[in-house]
Amino acid sequence: MPGLPPPRYAYLGPEGTFTEAALRSLPSASKAHLMPCSTVPAALDAVRQGEADGAMVPLENSVEGSVAVTLDALAVGEPLLIAREVVLPVAFAVATRPGIAPEDVRTIATIPHAHAQVRGWLDEHLPGAALLPTPSTADGARVVAEGGADAAVCAPIAAERYGLVVLASDVHDALDAQTRFVLAVRPSGPPPPPTGWDRTSLVAFIADDHAGALLELLTELAVRGVNLTRIESRPTGEGLGRYCFSIDCEGHVAEPRVGEALAALRRTCLDLRFLGSYPRADAAPESTPRRRGTSEAEFRDGAAWVERLRTGPV
Amino acid sequence: MPGLPPPRYAYLGPEGTFTEAALRSLPSASKAHLMPCSTVPAALDAVRQGEADGAMVPLENSVEGSVAVTLDALAVGEPLLIAREVVLPVAFAVATRPGIAPEDVRTIATIPHAHAQVRGWLDEHLPGAALLPTPSTADGARVVAEGGADAAVCAPIAAERYGLVVLASDVHDALDAQTRFVLAVRPSGPPPPPTGWDRTSLVAFIADDHAGALLELLTELAVRGVNLTRIESRPTGEGLGRYCFSIDCEGHVAEPRVGEALAALRRTCLDLRFLGSYPRADAAPESTPRRRGTSEAEFRDGAAWVERLRTGPV
Amino acid sequence: MPGLPPPRYAYLGPEGTFTEAALRSLPSASKAHLMPCSTVPAALDAVRQGEADGAMVPLENSVEGSVAVTLDALAVGEPLLIAREVVLPVAFAVATRPGIAPEDVRTIATIPHAHAQVRGWLDEHLPGAALLPTPSTADGARVVAEGGADAAVCAPIAAERYGLVVLASDVHDALDAQTRFVLAVRPSGPPPPPTGWDRTSLVAFIADDHAGALLELLTELAVRGVNLTRIESRPTGEGLGRYCFSIDCEGHVAEPRVGEALAALRRTCLDLRFLGSYPRADAAPESTPRRRGTSEAEFRDGAAWVERLRTGPV
Amino acid sequence: MPGLPPPRYAYLGPEGTFTEAALRSLPSASKAHLMPCSTVPAALDAVRQGEADGAMVPLENSVEGSVAVTLDALAVGEPLLIAREVVLPVAFAVATRPGIAPEDVRTIATIPHAHAQVRGWLDEHLPGAALLPTPSTADGARVVAEGGADAAVCAPIAAERYGLVVLASDVHDALDAQTRFVLAVRPSGPPPPPTGWDRTSLVAFIADDHAGALLELLTELAVRGVNLTRIESRPTGEGLGRYCFSIDCEGHVAEPRVGEALAALRRTCLDLRFLGSYPRADAAPESTPRRRGTSEAEFRDGAAWVERLRTGPV
Repeated sequence: MPGLPPPRYAYLGPEGTFTEAALRSLPSASKAHLMPCSTVPAALDAVRQGEADGAMVPLENSVEGSVAVTLDALAVGEPLLIAREVVLPVAFAVATRPGIAPEDVRTIATIPHAHAQVRGWLDEHLPGAALLPTPSTADGARVVAEGGADAAVCAPIAAERYGLVVLASDVHDALDAQTRFVLAVRPSGPPPPPTGWDRTSLVAFIADDHAGALLELLTELAVRGVNLTRIESRPTGEGLGRYCFSIDCEGHVAEPRVGEALAALRRTCLDLRFLGSYPRADAAPESTPRRRGTSEAEFRDGAAWVERLRTGPV
Repeated sequence: MPGLPPPRYAYLGPEGTFTEAALRSLPSASKAHLMPCSTVPAALDAVRQGEADGAMVPLENSVEGSVAVTLDALAVGEPLLIAREVVLPVAFAVATRPGIAPEDVRTIATIPHAHAQVRGWLDEHLPGAALLPTPSTADGARVVAEGGADAAVCAPIAAERYGLVVLASDVHDALDAQTRFVLAVRPSGPPPPPTGWDRTSLVAFIADDHAGALLELLTELAVRGVNLTRIESRPTGEGLGRYCFSIDCEGHVAEPRVGEALAALRRTCLDLRFLGSYPRADAAPESTPRRRGTSEAEFRDGAAWVERLRTGPV
Repeated sequence: MPGLPPPRYAYLGPEGTFTEAALRSLPSASKAHLMPCSTVPAALDAVRQGEADGAMVPLENSVEGSVAVTLDALAVGEPLLIAREVVLPVAFAVATRPGIAPEDVRTIATIPHAHAQVRGWLDEHLPGAALLPTPSTADGARVVAEGGADAAVCAPIAAERYGLVVLASDVHDALDAQTRFVLAVRPSGPPPPPTGWDRTSLVAFIADDHAGALLELLTELAVRGVNLTRIESRPTGEGLGRYCFSIDCEGHVAEPRVGEALAALRRTCLDLRFLGSYPRADAAPESTPRRRGTSEAEFRDGAAWVERLRTGPV
Repeated sequence: MPGLPPPRYAYLGPEGTFTEAALRSLPSASKAHLMPCSTVPAALDAVRQGEADGAMVPLENSVEGSVAVTLDALAVGEPLLIAREVVLPVAFAVATRPGIAPEDVRTIATIPHAHAQVRGWLDEHLPGAALLPTPSTADGARVVAEGGADAAVCAPIAAERYGLVVLASDVHDALDAQTRFVLAVRPSGPPPPPTGWDRTSLVAFIADDHAGALLELLTELAVRGVNLTRIESRPTGEGLGRYCFSIDCEGHVAEPRVGEALAALRRTCLDLRFLGSYPRADAAPESTPRRRGTSEAEFRDGAAWVERLRTGPV
């Protein structure tokens, strides 16, 4: 029995990066056809054009901040929906080619940024080794495999892929950085069902350039008990001082409080783009106690009461 | 063909007061059985107990303020709904018994309050006449008819009823005071249909004695574009500092913005009593420009959009 | 050494009412010359015209609500300040003329309202006695003293004043009603010093008839951590729908948070009348936890920080 | 008489970039010693360590958004103040080495990003020329001057510096992009005096991770009539979901409304960093009508009124 063809997933390449690791953390990726793309827009466009069924791209990093290119590529163009999120710690492997002893490491291939984050470990364990800059950590692993350097600082998945020997894993600086990745898909059918620990992502284009517009937007969420977890202004490209807002909030569009808040933003914003409701990676209950009167049951009771007022008692 | 029995309307008596005039301004009152009651609670209870089909009572006066006894009698007890409002100017007739010339008027029977309001006219036209205080303006007219005084300051309806000669009508002080009356009925069937110039009346019991509760209540109305036209705090009887709020707002419960706001208050207040949606007496468009995104069409579009998000595109 | 002349205090009469009892609860009343007045405006005008140094008047009752005449008389006319508040339980004495045994009581003189509140006690202890209505409870006591009735329901102070025998004191219905009285004085010098349990009273005339004006007013208080304890709308007399707001809030004008909030209301309202900062009668700490950043020390630190920004570091 | 030594200004290099052009637009730059730095943090640290008197760095671009490295470098470390802002259009010069005719241009040296923005012009005027990527537009000009390519796409200042012949200036894509640069200095003395078209920059660290914290922050600004012109969330590095906010608002700390708002944020935020009050580059009046009651005169009147309440009338 043939079954469905395996899914095709694009991701921000090259192979062996943390983004590939994020993608491979999905059960459905094990049998999938994975397609590395050179840029985030290229990965998303592969989905838009039907060449891929989903695209894994980085959205934000707990130290670096939002990935602007991802926010912008999701905010415009053919609409896509976020169906999943994956959060990975930024923890590197330091790996050598088989046969190279630590004391023989003279060159380390990686991107300078990663090098900086593990400098403490390198100073202690591989003192005196020089940096050979590469465009990505995965490229560093490849260069080591090809003999161009002695050791790489890379994602664990890259060490594995290039057959390197891992000297140390989980090497990172003091900040315990994490990166959040999202899987974007074409809209088709309902979003994934609510789990109780969901997130909803939006892009809001504010109607007027008036001072209180953002305050009003936040009030629409707050009065309905919808907590904001991320807000990021992005230029609309129409001039300094013209922004849209990339927003994450707690809850699922299927919940009454979120649905009512989204309808309110749809009405009061110039434009509102829905980027999906999907389970949060931490699968934890909401951080903030829910405001009185905003549970699903209370919403349904309130709506039913108004309906009775409208039709009148029997 | 016999048809329905004529309606029975209670009102705050005695006969000949402005409240009766307000009631008689309703077309349906022409064939109705009218029942004067000695107090507002008595009139409302006549409706509650099925002895009357409606009760006309004063709610507020533009100079005196709210009629506390009416607010309180509507806020507790078996629920009633306001089905109509009537606004009357506080303008008095000065009337004498037939055969009495103005120059012969020595005594004027009325309530002291009315006497004070027309003192200017009296000083000019009936100088030297003494006040004979009566419990109501209608009582003053009755006393004049019975020969106990020479002239009355009363509602025009009382002069008519007691066969007096009107020396002057539309006598009032500089403030152009108005009184607003409401017709309360038993809940049965839907409220009167929306007209485009409706009012909705509520009593909100605030959940927590916390400082921001009133602010939150007003925010629930404001974000949905529902304008407040009257707010009155009334003690709940549970101690100083414990209040409920008697509220009038623009709009009709059948409108999405009002329905959503009422559902929100129902959820977030300790208790919310709906006192009806009914046409405003001024039949004028709303005073304040509607906030962006709060029209009926925008509400329906927003809700439809969210529904599409939930079910997914075809 | 002669010293100051004794203070002269007006109050809402007649003698022997709860208002006199409230006034006599002030230490300074013991040597004062007390002046009963027939109305609240008369008592306040006695102060305005220099005939009295203060006037004790009722402001609100936990069951009846605000005393509209007091609110209105304080809101307009020559400004007065509230210097003290007194809260008294509404608990009556039932008293007879000496020599009358309970079983001989046939008539009870009091205002009907008070009679209603103690009906339970009367039914049990003085069954069958008829009500003789009087304009005030104090009048009831006087009538009994003069032999016109057998028993009075009155303030304890009236029984004492008229030499009656108290059958029962602290008689009241289930609601434990309280009345709050205030002592109004002419503005001269600073308000009484802050105690830590102060109240500030205001009358706010809203600038525009716009829907959000009350919301904005409450926001000005809330952002500065000033809790509202009473808000009452009163007609301005300019037509239905035109109100001012009589407001009590926690705190003293000498506190930075209150001062800043009052300045904000002064700027944003059409008019703002300050009615005084004075100790709350309950002398209790504030009911609501203070919002972060609104203590006196935090206000002073914030202002000092801004001052440093303005002048620049050394 | 020798006078002061010339100022020393650091800037984001290399020489010949738009940042240098922004710096040279300042009158004080004409006699200054200019120090190109390889990174924004290096330029700011030169000021912090006293090696430079100011540093010009890019803050945001109307198409690309904020320059995260600038926001982050200003948000932490030894405090700096923004003393000036400069806004430049992103408009390129296309320039050749003297003696090269347009029809002989085969290679174009620039950063790929600039190449993409002027592709329309190149396709029309220099068809067939290949891109030679360089790390900056200024490097492209240098490469052309040294004979390594035929034409450069660069800032006008770079063409001038390297003695190139400008084929076209003001070449840009349809978006009319602008970049905003700021001059950061060490705090010493007061900020530049208010001009009437000032901006104030802040970094706010929100006290609690509670949902309404951003809403409260915006409310503190809004009630005082301080308009937000930019808000950007940046990770604090303490984990996903932990942000600080980089904020620009209209007005000057010397104004009462701004000073009061800053004091409020200082009190209610976990930390607040003041980044300066300085003239807006557009020198235009504020975009939004000022909220009632927030002018400087109204603030002073309100404060004076409260002061009179506190001390009492004479």
